[in-house]
Amino acid sequence: MSELLRQHIEKIVLLTDAEFAHILSHFVSKKFKKHQFVVQEGQVVAHDFFILSGCLKSYSTDVNGKEHIIQFGMPDWWITDYQAYYGQSVATMNIDCIEPSELLCLSYANREKLCAEYHKIEHFFRKKTNKRNVALQQRILSLLSSTAQERYDQLLQQYPELFQKVPKHLIASYLGVTRETLSRFRQSDK
Amino acid sequence: MSELLRQHIEKIVLLTDAEFAHILSHFVSKKFKKHQFVVQEGQVVAHDFFILSGCLKSYSTDVNGKEHIIQFGMPDWWITDYQAYYGQSVATMNIDCIEPSELLCLSYANREKLCAEYHKIEHFFRKKTNKRNVALQQRILSLLSSTAQERYDQLLQQYPELFQKVPKHLIASYLGVTRETLSRFRQSDK
Repeated sequence: MSELLRQHIEKIVLLTDAEFAHILSHFVSKKFKKHQFVVQEGQVVAHDFFILSGCLKSYSTDVNGKEHIIQFGMPDWWITDYQAYYGQSVATMNIDCIEPSELLCLSYANREKLCAEYHKIEHFFRKKTNKRNVALQQRILSLLSSTAQERYDQLLQQYPELFQKVPKHLIASYLGVTRETLSRFRQSDK
Repeated sequence: MSELLRQHIEKIVLLTDAEFAHILSHFVSKKFKKHQFVVQEGQVVAHDFFILSGCLKSYSTDVNGKEHIIQFGMPDWWITDYQAYYGQSVATMNIDCIEPSELLCLSYANREKLCAEYHKIEHFFRKKTNKRNVALQQRILSLLSSTAQERYDQLLQQYPELFQKVPKHLIASYLGVTRETLSRFRQSDK
């Protein structure tokens, strides 16, 4: 299963078997049940999570108790509350499992240690963080200036696999529309 | 003036005089007039920009021609369209100068070269990108689940200097409110 992490890293930098074994020894593998919290608002965020299997969502809750989905997490992706993880502070969002999920957990100290030990791992994480920047920028642009229909089309184009895994009411919440509006989009799709 | 870049880098990693001179030789200094475009939608984004002086804004335009401000840029900050810069593709936003601005321009090839040459510069850019991630995450959380009054308070708390430099109608656009609503916030502030 941890082969997925190696393939993921090796899309950017190549590793010897010994290097990968050393890197992997800095992760802890953990299984989470459906609906289980991985990150909880108000608690310290100790880890970044590489997703081996399952499906997750991160979301914030507004003053009226309404949930707003920030992102989904799928196998081969990373997820955490990065503001809290980088600052080693408490979470301002929740992350929980839409499906049972197996995650490789990397502490902040171990991430920094690996980056200091290997220039190429520092390079790997810089490149991954660049990609996250792009995804976050796209999310902001989409929230600021796209219609719900455009946001739906973008999501379907970028992450078609999400539509297989994620319940419709969560897709609707991510897009900021009602389920009724979402089903109109889906119909216009056929 | 380029001392500002050295101080900026040395908040994260220390440099010798020779190292800084070598790094600086990879930047091109350029002056921009008020209202001049630094990045223009549809054009290739060749550079990331370190701001020595002035004030900038990045924004996208929706189908109705309405401008939505993504971020502001102040001295000691970086600004570009990162999606286009990292992908060496065309911009999906505009960046222009609110005030005359002096920028240090770093091409993508030079950034990668410096990162490959110096592990500590790779470290510096990873850390800067982490910080940008946090800022982008905050912007998303704020767009998803904060009221306009909360967004105003957050902006004032984080970047008080913006309120000195940036015209009120641009602050209103950033917050997604009318100028009239903004002046009510400002009054309740006194």
